Amino acid sequence: MPPVAPAPAHRTAETVVTVLGTDGRPLVDADVTVAQRRHDLAFGCTGFDFVALANGEAGGGPDSTFGGAPAEQAADLAELWLDLFDTATLPFYWRGFEPEPGRPDTARLRAAARWFDERGVRVKGHPLMWHTLAPRWLLDRPTDEVERLQRARITREVGDLAGLVDTWDAINEVVIMPVFTAEENAISRLAWEKGRLHVIRLAFETARAANPRATLLLNDFDMSTAYECLVEAVLEAGIQVDGLGLQSHMHQGWWGEEKTHRVLERFSRFGLPLHFTETTLVSGELMPREIVDLNDYRVASWPSTPEGEARQAEELARHCTLLAEHPAVRSMTYWGLADEGAWLGAPAGLVRADGTPKPAYHAMRDLVRGAWWYAPTTLRTDGSGRVVVSGWRGDYEVRAGDQVAPFVVGGAAATARLSGELVRAGSVGLG
Amino acid sequence: MPPVAPAPAHRTAETVVTVLGTDGRPLVDADVTVAQRRHDLAFGCTGFDFVALANGEAGGGPDSTFGGAPAEQAADLAELWLDLFDTATLPFYWRGFEPEPGRPDTARLRAAARWFDERGVRVKGHPLMWHTLAPRWLLDRPTDEVERLQRARITREVGDLAGLVDTWDAINEVVIMPVFTAEENAISRLAWEKGRLHVIRLAFETARAANPRATLLLNDFDMSTAYECLVEAVLEAGIQVDGLGLQSHMHQGWWGEEKTHRVLERFSRFGLPLHFTETTLVSGELMPREIVDLNDYRVASWPSTPEGEARQAEELARHCTLLAEHPAVRSMTYWGLADEGAWLGAPAGLVRADGTPKPAYHAMRDLVRGAWWYAPTTLRTDGSGRVVVSGWRGDYEVRAGDQVAPFVVGGAAATARLSGELVRAGSVGLG
Repeated sequence: MPPVAPAPAHRTAETVVTVLGTDGRPLVDADVTVAQRRHDLAFGCTGFDFVALANGEAGGGPDSTFGGAPAEQAADLAELWLDLFDTATLPFYWRGFEPEPGRPDTARLRAAARWFDERGVRVKGHPLMWHTLAPRWLLDRPTDEVERLQRARITREVGDLAGLVDTWDAINEVVIMPVFTAEENAISRLAWEKGRLHVIRLAFETARAANPRATLLLNDFDMSTAYECLVEAVLEAGIQVDGLGLQSHMHQGWWGEEKTHRVLERFSRFGLPLHFTETTLVSGELMPREIVDLNDYRVASWPSTPEGEARQAEELARHCTLLAEHPAVRSMTYWGLADEGAWLGAPAGLVRADGTPKPAYHAMRDLVRGAWWYAPTTLRTDGSGRVVVSGWRGDYEVRAGDQVAPFVVGGAAATARLSGELVRAGSVGLG
Repeated sequence: MPPVAPAPAHRTAETVVTVLGTDGRPLVDADVTVAQRRHDLAFGCTGFDFVALANGEAGGGPDSTFGGAPAEQAADLAELWLDLFDTATLPFYWRGFEPEPGRPDTARLRAAARWFDERGVRVKGHPLMWHTLAPRWLLDRPTDEVERLQRARITREVGDLAGLVDTWDAINEVVIMPVFTAEENAISRLAWEKGRLHVIRLAFETARAANPRATLLLNDFDMSTAYECLVEAVLEAGIQVDGLGLQSHMHQGWWGEEKTHRVLERFSRFGLPLHFTETTLVSGELMPREIVDLNDYRVASWPSTPEGEARQAEELARHCTLLAEHPAVRSMTYWGLADEGAWLGAPAGLVRADGTPKPAYHAMRDLVRGAWWYAPTTLRTDGSGRVVVSGWRGDYEVRAGDQVAPFVVGGAAATARLSGELVRAGSVGLG
């Protein structure tokens, strides 16, 4: 473990909180307990493992296009998940979500989103438009109908989930979309015939219309100049993008500080929030460098090793620290808590196949819920009912006896009015 | 040599030419000699070797930023050059062109352009804006002044050469421009601070204003999706681009049919003419595939070999044939006739260091001035003074005795009025 750096100034705040009693008058000269509930900076993970659990199903659900652990392991995993992460990415891959035209999996996904929401977790949907895992039944439709169906699907999902899922990867991997050849699909055809900007505009404008409050991201794995050029095109076109999604599947090794800094420098200059949407670091052998499409690498067994786990732990801590240090970063999402069901069979989880947490889990938790976390602390209000709370920006609560109130550490001042139940006002979203 | 394919229909035309005598009346029932003078499809090469020759200098000129053979070899090279190519690329690299502020090399380059023009060769200027070979004296100027100087330099060169040089690489290698780190330079700084679209707009609008008749190209070596994304951005921005320049330095091996087809397919769909601006194929060992920046490969000696020369000849013939077959291709330019002075010391020329032509020279000439060429042919005009000429589109001439007249094969009909000297009317440009 590298030493923990001081908290970056842009991540923390000192907030004067005026605590009001249930009668609305300042609670003066009283002991209160202040605790953090959630970070402003989103620490996310895929929530695929819990769709079946949230729906009370025994197996892995009616399809397996997005992987995930079986429900019998999910309860134990859930405890580890909730003890580290505060933001879940849920799978809306069209092929699995709507296996037959007109039969979308809305109810199950809504239940999963609600399961997270009830546990104080922000939920993000992934993705509304993507060439990979596009329905096979789209293939024989004419391009104009594909476009109409894609619009309708975006309108439906964004509308149906609004209020529970207010952040979306509006469109995924557009750099390669029109020239993707690994599997014939109708979305690449649409992007080829109409152009990248046309499909980006389609995705963003349709999603925006269905939920004007939504945070909509452009998401890509391509960290080359191609993505920069695409972003310049999108900005030039006047398409309102709320953030840039940067994938970072590091099966071939951690980027390291230099590349991470350079990526942050290159993509932050557009002035948009950066979301590290898909991070993986393996705790076993690295995938050979010469593999271009990670999907091409298939091995019978890819074990987690002690050396690999130590390396993964150090790299994950450094990765999280580097991202937290850069003010443009709005979220960092790890791509899968468990090795079980991980993409490519890689030991990319933070929890081993036997359910025990790896060192990387502890390393990340030591930061997110340790060094960077405001643990429950007793403070005394002054003669005006005020306490000063200095910590990482985010959602907090103050308790006095069996009364509780939420407040936000971020601005200079906040007011917290105690009540018998914890209301959700003042929550920090992902937007 | 592969068999020569039939001429693609879009490259040829059947034109009925009405031959008029000096008195303006049809020359009926007369023998005339018809010959092609130049292709419409431009077969180009760098003309760097002849700048000194055109200026009557003994050495290689006052600078060597662009290479080129010494003047004493240039006369022999010129004969080979003019017997194959019809379009010259002249070097306007800013660092060499204006070694000290305010002392541009205009007179020498104008003399070189005129030398080609007098020999019936179209001239293109390369490049008006590029990070590589930007003047070192720009480095300490503030960015706004760099921008002002860049605009002034474009206005000056394009204006000074108008009429002789009407085709320009307006800006070179923009994909990498802002993130180019191999050498600190003021142009990358400008592109980083203002964005790719800003500098592209700057280059095109400034050049257009200086010469509204100019053909202005965007030129890049990056054949990845990055360049596609950039082109989409440029089109979205409404910047008028007259053609896309595609470099094809193949020091690591010929692209092959599949990649060539794919590049043509991907870049032709924007509806812009394609210019293959910089083609090289080596006649020796190939550069190893793992080299990313070709400039990083330095060898003491890189000889041309018999096997390499045979391979180069076959590949060049196939390359030219593939490009001619695609209707979007407007030009193909080979990057350097001679091994002497070639970039990276590669045996990339079509002429050996000893001045003798390689098999690739003959292979290309067998097409361009052989199978694809309308050699002098005697035809007899009909009772209305007409002959039917069927051949590759381009500039032709008809002779009767010591009278001559130009005409263009391209449309259904043409008129050629004989005179004592060959006027240049009707010439096919590069636009």
